[in-house]
Amino acid sequence: MNVSLKVDGDNAGEGERLMTIPIELGVRHYDIHIGHNLWDNIVEYLPFSLKGQRVFILSDDNVAPLYAEKIADVLKANGAGAVQVMAVPAGEQSKNFSTLGQVINWMIEGGVTRQSVLFTVGGGVVGDLGGFAASIMMRGIPFVQVPTSLLAMVDSSVGGKTGIDIPQGKNLVGSFYQPETVIIDLDTLKTLPKRELLAGYAEIAKYGLINDPEFFIWLEHSGHKILALKPGAVRRAIETSCAKKAELVAMDEREKDQRALLNLGHTFGHALETAAGYDGRLLHGEAVAIGTVMAFTLSMRRGHCDEDDVLRIKDHFKALGIPTKISDIQPPLEASVDDLIDLMRRDKKATAAGLVFILAYGIGKSYISKDVEMEDVRGVIQSSLSK
Amino acid sequence: MNVSLKVDGDNAGEGERLMTIPIELGVRHYDIHIGHNLWDNIVEYLPFSLKGQRVFILSDDNVAPLYAEKIADVLKANGAGAVQVMAVPAGEQSKNFSTLGQVINWMIEGGVTRQSVLFTVGGGVVGDLGGFAASIMMRGIPFVQVPTSLLAMVDSSVGGKTGIDIPQGKNLVGSFYQPETVIIDLDTLKTLPKRELLAGYAEIAKYGLINDPEFFIWLEHSGHKILALKPGAVRRAIETSCAKKAELVAMDEREKDQRALLNLGHTFGHALETAAGYDGRLLHGEAVAIGTVMAFTLSMRRGHCDEDDVLRIKDHFKALGIPTKISDIQPPLEASVDDLIDLMRRDKKATAAGLVFILAYGIGKSYISKDVEMEDVRGVIQSSLSK
Repeated sequence: MNVSLKVDGDNAGEGERLMTIPIELGVRHYDIHIGHNLWDNIVEYLPFSLKGQRVFILSDDNVAPLYAEKIADVLKANGAGAVQVMAVPAGEQSKNFSTLGQVINWMIEGGVTRQSVLFTVGGGVVGDLGGFAASIMMRGIPFVQVPTSLLAMVDSSVGGKTGIDIPQGKNLVGSFYQPETVIIDLDTLKTLPKRELLAGYAEIAKYGLINDPEFFIWLEHSGHKILALKPGAVRRAIETSCAKKAELVAMDEREKDQRALLNLGHTFGHALETAAGYDGRLLHGEAVAIGTVMAFTLSMRRGHCDEDDVLRIKDHFKALGIPTKISDIQPPLEASVDDLIDLMRRDKKATAAGLVFILAYGIGKSYISKDVEMEDVRGVIQSSLSK
Repeated sequence: MNVSLKVDGDNAGEGERLMTIPIELGVRHYDIHIGHNLWDNIVEYLPFSLKGQRVFILSDDNVAPLYAEKIADVLKANGAGAVQVMAVPAGEQSKNFSTLGQVINWMIEGGVTRQSVLFTVGGGVVGDLGGFAASIMMRGIPFVQVPTSLLAMVDSSVGGKTGIDIPQGKNLVGSFYQPETVIIDLDTLKTLPKRELLAGYAEIAKYGLINDPEFFIWLEHSGHKILALKPGAVRRAIETSCAKKAELVAMDEREKDQRALLNLGHTFGHALETAAGYDGRLLHGEAVAIGTVMAFTLSMRRGHCDEDDVLRIKDHFKALGIPTKISDIQPPLEASVDDLIDLMRRDKKATAAGLVFILAYGIGKSYISKDVEMEDVRGVIQSSLSK
């Protein structure tokens, strides 16, 4: 696994590529290109020719008018065959079987062939849904990921997880499928709603909490700069996050072991999202923030982690305006402790033997635990539900 | 690619494994076990322990009462956790989005985890549908293929193609996903309807026609023995077919090139199946038989192949009772030449530039052609439609 960074220009301005992060996964390789205002030269970053090929651009109704149409124009001007744009409703509720069927139909009716390329332009929902559609369309067509949310940049751009939700849980249906390349234009963050920026930040903090205490210390000092979109801070945050995720994924592409550490905060978090019904009151990153605090609280209950560490995480999130408790969700979640435990048992990470949690011996010292006492889990949920 | 055969006992009787064909695909490896009456010892052939794991057995309503329940009992007796059986309606019409959703739901409601195992017990439909469900369930759970039709034994047991049909065409949605192992019990052929046996035979003949003229000569002499289920003949036919397919797949797992030769007869054949609406009047193998004759006729029209070769294939199929013309389908297909050409353009193998056909310079001398004259294609369809 090579995560060395090729930095093309340290003080690059508009229209310049800042860096390329090569992702090596066995026989597959792809690059993540990061920069400012990359659209006009987007074909430079594609590892294949678009000459005469049909292109499908999947986006959502927030992002399509801002970026998808522009990218379509550039691709057409650069020799692509027919370029078609589809916008699904923004939000997690589009990650379902029925919308998947619509995306498949749209490509079929648009004359898709195995050489056609699907671009996903949007946040995690569009990337997960579109990546999954690309993976099963004629058993796999090439796709290019253009993440436009902070969460998608630091999370779904690496690792090839695609999928949809079903009523019984999040991402229960999907595939592992790698993009041909990922193009991150940092300028898209300027149009991202503040709440989405905060939610994405929680996933960045996660990388520090997993195994990099120094990165977390840097975040404690620089979090506000990232959220204010100061270029140097944003760049370091995204670069570090992508590289750290790439490292863990390369060790364990199909999540048999170490990759599971990336699920810090996710066992609790997914249950909260499912309980909230993906109705918009709880974003994925917010659920991860709350779930991460719960995971550290559970670690403390087991005597593995100091209360100081739990408080540092809570204080950091609170200072930036990120939720830390289930009771922060508005309107309030109507789920009981038992409801949430039931939902956790259905999580993909659960085994026949029981629940799997990512816990920690402290900040930057996470581990996989399969022998948690259910009484402790109940206690943690109870206290997070309280005001 | 290693296709050497480990023959465990040349004159093995009931309850004995005859041979194991190792399939090597890059980092993945699995074995095809072939023998008689293998159920009682089925756990011997599994490359993992079933202890305490949930097992899901997908079958169809013809095959489930014959074999699935019996396998369920053996697995339970051998330490598997809960074993659940689901039978979909027999026939191609079960390979659709809605049945896929039902299979996914059945597994979720049955408490599936990533360590659960899905067995597919049945023909190609059950294998394709179940393999696809396994590949997208929690992004992939292990599956074991137990093909019970001749077609599934010689075709879908090798190569990892899974998928479902959509109204616009066959197998347009699916994945490449390899089973953990394949268990072929030749005794199941005794309960296979004669028509299905004939349809499966067409795929066996295909392997000779692709690149093994001697195998085709042997089939001309031994075809009736295979259809009468003479053990030696059945065994050689299945062994040769699996090994030949493994060889082509290993060269080209994702069908960028040589693997496409396996699609001999399939460009025409898939269009016929779609036109017939999967209503039971045309089995996949029958469509391949008709499509293969059409592919050789098209080769002849181009002056690449002798009329003698076309006649040999037709005579061989006719002598065994296998259809060779579109007009053999009953009740008759109501498709016009244009309808069938439209359907072919939607085939996965079509490129933006045009249709892809597997043609031949003669028996055992197939090649991939992308520059067929549409006038020739029309002529071939026209003559196959005539009485």
